[in-house]
Amino acid sequence: MSRVFLDISLSLDGFAAGPDISREHPLGRNGEALHAWLFGRNGQQPDDADRQAAQEMFCETGAFIIGRTTYDVGVPEWGDDGAFGMPCFVMTHRLRAPHVMGPTTFTFAGEGPQAVLAKARAEAGRKAVCIMGGATTARQFIEAGLLDELRIHIAPVLLGQGTRLFDTLRDVAPLQAMPAISSPLAIHLRFNRQA
Amino acid sequence: MSRVFLDISLSLDGFAAGPDISREHPLGRNGEALHAWLFGRNGQQPDDADRQAAQEMFCETGAFIIGRTTYDVGVPEWGDDGAFGMPCFVMTHRLRAPHVMGPTTFTFAGEGPQAVLAKARAEAGRKAVCIMGGATTARQFIEAGLLDELRIHIAPVLLGQGTRLFDTLRDVAPLQAMPAISSPLAIHLRFNRQA
Repeated sequence: MSRVFLDISLSLDGFAAGPDISREHPLGRNGEALHAWLFGRNGQQPDDADRQAAQEMFCETGAFIIGRTTYDVGVPEWGDDGAFGMPCFVMTHRLRAPHVMGPTTFTFAGEGPQAVLAKARAEAGRKAVCIMGGATTARQFIEAGLLDELRIHIAPVLLGQGTRLFDTLRDVAPLQAMPAISSPLAIHLRFNRQA
Repeated sequence: MSRVFLDISLSLDGFAAGPDISREHPLGRNGEALHAWLFGRNGQQPDDADRQAAQEMFCETGAFIIGRTTYDVGVPEWGDDGAFGMPCFVMTHRLRAPHVMGPTTFTFAGEGPQAVLAKARAEAGRKAVCIMGGATTARQFIEAGLLDELRIHIAPVLLGQGTRLFDTLRDVAPLQAMPAISSPLAIHLRFNRQA
């Protein structure tokens, strides 16, 4: 069965987005620092560690799951080539018909995380399912205990406010830390769930 | 003038301690995982990366600043040799006479972070001042913009609840990420404040 991993960028103070998410600021105010390791910023370009982290995400994934806000603010960013190149499920109560964009089909799914995950697994084949965020979607998978792995990219910034990934959880979850790789734009952390 | 760095252990979800801090549980319930990289735990011993991170803290520091709760719950843990071996300032409104414990003198200081830092700098000489936590003390130094560096040891655990290090800050603070070092017990992160 496909592995399931979360892949998300956070500020050092734990925010997955700054305040006031909009099409102009898809990651909220000041949030663009969070994705500098993917897209570069202020003349700084991603380095080998950043490229490795991005490749690990895209090469290992057979289907993505994202939230509706990520879809709404992301699509204009990602451009006509559709960015993903593989099936992408949008977890949302605001359903619409599938959206085909270049090689990517966005399928809108109104069920809870278990049911959406089952659909994504059916598409992913031997590859993994990647939960890409935003925070609200990611949190549902964390709380349901559905993740085999967390990949967290910590950007060197304190945003001060915005949307936290980790809110109060009911249970303690021990994890297994894997070696981190570092660039000036992000520290790339990986944790496996302990069996 | 002495550099000032924060050196603190956090869970992946950002807690510097679990809930219900007590002498029995100095880092709160389930919080002992946070310091496993220093003291070992469940048969797992600190490795070279952990020892390097601890040495960097102790060898570079000329004076420590801690909060009153850290003092109250820490002293019985640290034992008669006083753990620090150098001047230690306890930032607190609950003042008492200095406490000499082996080679360490704990001096109680009732002023705000700037004034306590001035005292610690006078003792530290050419070495750095290390803010060791807990979260309440650390946050005052973050918010006052007094830190040159943050050293964060991320333990592989989601505690779910407890005392957060990073609460809402007023300003965005861009940082400079340094290469991380990793062990199974913690990922050791360092960030410099950008000039």
